[in-house]
This record gives sequence, C-alpha cells and structure tokens, in this order.
Amino acid sequence: MTAVLDSLAQGRQAIMPAMRAALERLDPTSRSIAYYHLGWTDLDGNPTDGGGKAVRPALALLSAEAAGAEPSVGLPGAVAVELVHNFSLLHDDLMDGDTERRHRPTVWAVRGAASAILTGDAMLSLAQEVLLDGDGPGAVAAARLLADATNELIRGQVLDVAFEQRNDVGLDECLDMAAGKTGALLSASTAIGAVLAGAPQPVVDALAGFGADLGLAFQLVDDVLGIWGEAAVTGKPVFSDLRARKKSLPVTYAITHGGALGRELAEWLARPEAPGEESVRHAAGLVEQAGGRKWALDEAYRRMAAGRQKLEDARIPDRAREELLSLAQFIVTREA
Amino acid sequence: MTAVLDSLAQGRQAIMPAMRAALERLDPTSRSIAYYHLGWTDLDGNPTDGGGKAVRPALALLSAEAAGAEPSVGLPGAVAVELVHNFSLLHDDLMDGDTERRHRPTVWAVRGAASAILTGDAMLSLAQEVLLDGDGPGAVAAARLLADATNELIRGQVLDVAFEQRNDVGLDECLDMAAGKTGALLSASTAIGAVLAGAPQPVVDALAGFGADLGLAFQLVDDVLGIWGEAAVTGKPVFSDLRARKKSLPVTYAITHGGALGRELAEWLARPEAPGEESVRHAAGLVEQAGGRKWALDEAYRRMAAGRQKLEDARIPDRAREELLSLAQFIVTREA
Repeated sequence: MTAVLDSLAQGRQAIMPAMRAALERLDPTSRSIAYYHLGWTDLDGNPTDGGGKAVRPALALLSAEAAGAEPSVGLPGAVAVELVHNFSLLHDDLMDGDTERRHRPTVWAVRGAASAILTGDAMLSLAQEVLLDGDGPGAVAAARLLADATNELIRGQVLDVAFEQRNDVGLDECLDMAAGKTGALLSASTAIGAVLAGAPQPVVDALAGFGADLGLAFQLVDDVLGIWGEAAVTGKPVFSDLRARKKSLPVTYAITHGGALGRELAEWLARPEAPGEESVRHAAGLVEQAGGRKWALDEAYRRMAAGRQKLEDARIPDRAREELLSLAQFIVTREA
Repeated sequence: MTAVLDSLAQGRQAIMPAMRAALERLDPTSRSIAYYHLGWTDLDGNPTDGGGKAVRPALALLSAEAAGAEPSVGLPGAVAVELVHNFSLLHDDLMDGDTERRHRPTVWAVRGAASAILTGDAMLSLAQEVLLDGDGPGAVAAARLLADATNELIRGQVLDVAFEQRNDVGLDECLDMAAGKTGALLSASTAIGAVLAGAPQPVVDALAGFGADLGLAFQLVDDVLGIWGEAAVTGKPVFSDLRARKKSLPVTYAITHGGALGRELAEWLARPEAPGEESVRHAAGLVEQAGGRKWALDEAYRRMAAGRQKLEDARIPDRAREELLSLAQFIVTREA
C-alpha cells in the first residue's frame, strides 16, 4: 500500500516538469483552464494542493521499466496519456452535465461550454505534439498507439451516449463499450513506455493486454461502487448510478441473465417517472438478487487474474512486474 | 475560372476514396454523422449531391505538385486537413450556436451537443492516424505540421471567444487571432503536400508563408462580406456581422484608426440593446467612413501580393505555381 502511494507520488513528481513544459505551448487562456481542471490552481490562478492521482502516467513510467529502460524513457508517453485522459474528462463532464469533479466545480460549469470544448481540443492536440517531438526509436509508434487508443476511447463514449436511449443493450455490447471507454487508454498507458523504449512486440502486447484487463476490472468495480459504494469512497451518494438509471455492467448482467428478476428490473428502468428512495433501494436489491453484483466482482477478479498471467508469461523484470501488479490492485480496489 | 472549378472538382474526386477509407475507421454512429456533416448524405443516410468545395484538399494536392511530386503524394495530407477543418466546424457551430451551415441544419442542432463534440473529436484524432499510417519520408513531419497548425487553430478560436467579452481589442491582436483561426490550417494545407514529398525547407517555407497570407486575405474579404456581402453570395443577410456586433477586422480597424468616427462606432458596439435596422445601417456607414472597408480590401490585396511573391521566389514548377495562384484568387474572391 505505502509502496504504491510512494510510487504514485514519485510518478506525479517525475512528470510535473514535463507536463508544465507541454502546457506552456498552449495559449495562456487554455493553459490557465487546464491548470484549474488538473487541480493545480484555483479559479484565480493561485496554486492549490489538489490534483488527480495520475495513475496513467505512473503506469506509463512503469511500462518503460517493464521493457528494461529507465522510467524517464516513458515520460513523453506519461504526459500524453494524462493529456488525453483530461481531454476526455473535460468533454465528458460537459456532455454528461456533471457540475462537480473531485469536489470542485467542473470547467464548463464555471467557464462555459466553449472553454471546456476548446481546452479539451487543445489537450488532445497537444498529446500528439508531445509524442511527435520525441526523437527516440519508438516516438512514431507511440503516436500511432495513442491515436488508436483515442479513437477507441471516443467509440466507447459514443456507445455510452447511444445506450442511454436504448432498452435492449446486450452484455457483450456493454463490455465492448467499457473496453473502449475505459480499457483503451489504460491499455495505451501500460504499453506506451515499452513502445517508446523500442521493446519487442510480445512484451508490448503483454503490457497492452494487461492494461485492457485492468481497464475492464476497474470499470466493473467502479460500476459496483456506483450502486453500493459509500459516499466517502466514491464522492457520490449511495445508489447514485441507479438513481440516474444508468445501464452499467452489473445492471446489464442482471437484466440479461436474471430471468424474472431481470425483467422486473428492466421494467423499473423503463418507467418515465423519477424513482423515490424506497424504489431505488428495491431496484438495487433486484440487481443483487439477479446476480449482477456477484457477477461483476467475479468478472473483475477473473480479468485481474488474466492480466496478471499476461505479465507473468512475458519477459519483464520482476520489480517492474510487481509494481505494475500493485498499482493495478490499487487502481481497481481504490484503497486510498 | 473554369480551370479552377475543374481543379476543385478533380481534387474532390481524387480525395473521395481516401476520405471514405479514413472514415471507415470511425464507429458507425460517428461515421454517419460525419457523412451528414460533410454533405454526403441526408439525415437518414441517403446519398445527396452536396458537400463543401474542399479547397484545403485541393491546395494539399497542388502542394505536392509544387514540390515536383505526383498530386497523390499529397493525398494523406489532403484528407487530414479536411478532417481537421471539419472537426473545427463541428465544434464551432456548437459554440457559436449556429443552427445552419450550407443551408442545412448543423449537427448539434439535429443530433445534440454530444454528437457534435464526439464526432469532432473523432475527426481530429483520425486526422493524425491518417498521416501516421503513411510510410513516406515526410509522414512524421506532416503529422507534426498538422498538430502545430491545430494548436494554432484552437488558439485563434480561444482568442475569438475571448474578444467577444472585451471592448479594447487592438488591430494586431485581431490580425493574430485571424492568423490562428483561419491562416494556420490554410498554411498547413499549402505546405503539407510538399512536406509529404520531402521537399527542401525553402520550398516548404515559401508554400507555408503563401498559405498564411492567403488565410489572412481570405479572412479580410470574408469580414467585408460579413458586413456588406449580398445574401446570395454569403448565405446570410446583409450587415449580419454588424447585427451580431462582431468585432471583425474592418470594425477593429475603424475603431482603432478612425478617430471620432471610431469612437462613435465603439460606443454603438457597447450598447446593451439590440440595434434596429436603421441603426445597423448607420454603423455600417461609420465603419466605411472610418476607413475600415477600404483598409480591409487593401490589406487583403497586399497579403495576396506578398503570398504571390513568396511563390515566385521559390523553386516551384510554373504549372503548380499558376494553379495555386488561381485557386487562391478563387478562394479569396469567391467567384463561385
């Protein structure tokens, strides 16, 4: 635990100068909005202690180590995946109408839609610039990897938006959406350092596969927390995803595999009126009795095991493997 | 004239298969929205005759010819600049609240904000993928050029949004905004074919400079048409930019160089109430008497002359130079 937090703190420390240097290339307005969004400053530009955990950069640095290189080789990749992650948060918060992130007002809520759109656009474009500036052997391959992952990320988001209007979403579709929305960028994060280091394809593939498994495991647990998580952990009230009638993975499993209970749940989700507290609690019971919660947690465990196996089968230094596994465990279980 | 229209039609024809192949890589939803936005289909997916003039792709193909290469060498660049152009239109229409483009409803107006944001994001990311897929000597340099131009484009858009809230915009700032918003991508379009062809730096620089001049000349004339243009040419009612109290280039010149007339114009722009027809006509008179219209047209002429000179000083085949100049003239004067 402490080792993971140390490794995250070291990762954040290591990428800060490179992140700052990258953001220097933005126009002053976009840069100051990016600083606020990242939790580095308040709305007036005064430095703050905040900031995300920066798990993707930490994975990217470990990815370089997994290829036997210095962590610093992964630095442009660490910055680039963090930029793409934050591009997607800026646009998602706007599209979802979310007014808070990490207990602070979101950018669109305080600066308007145009600021969220343009700052997101600028961070996405900057991510490619950071990689293409590199002169190492893997710079171009890393840029390709990130562009592919970005397309996958957007595809997942498109499916997520489309699912809101549909009542017949299958479990495979739902897993495919999560693989795009959450898995693609985590997979790019765990692979990009090795790509920058010019690692052999089997090592890159193992790391990318591990990241994709990690992404799905994270999403499965996140969806369970979205229903049963305590506010202290999730920052949201209990049952919040059900209150928003989100067709998350446990809910979709319950509907498609839960027989009569699943049909009752599907009817509940299709009701036009907003559900009361008692009704939401009943729906959560339906998801649980229909096996949605158990399946999601079992499936998360299976994904983590599959990911671990990929790392164990690959020629990766033991220390880097251990750190990747510890960090993955931390990300999925959120033992913060 | 006919030659230019032929060249544009040929350019559109030449890039269609490559554009289609690129868009195949998008998820089906984003792809169908991109088809609609590009004017290739109606809202139900039925093919239509529409579509933009695709001047940027035509410039990119001529750019390869200017470097002594086959136009097809510029093809990935032609597709990429058209994708970035349309990414920016999708996001701009949403941010500006514009409900019509080319006499059809805009994407956000018919499919919602999320569709416009995500399809724009997908086209931006795809543009980089198209260039990085190339294996020619200039593919990476072209990807860098496009990422830089995209950052400049976004910077210009950020300034444009910021200027709406300010009453003290200087002429240099306004020219700098136009250089970003309009000049950067046209400059990338006129240079990217040569970059893909591996042309010597002086040729690339001359072409990039020519495109930047063309971009400013275009914006100056566009701003004049935004005030005095006939609806038949612009698709907008006469005085529309003044009615929206847009601080365009001729208006900013008039305010900053027009003495008492300029001050009267500035006061008019700062009034809180929406102006009546007579009042708008009076304001147009102020811009004209303060020299804003004449300056804008003179400055457009000077920029075009400067751009022409750059092409004449560079080692470029005569035919490519002539076609670039004809196309530039067409773009600026819109003799369609």
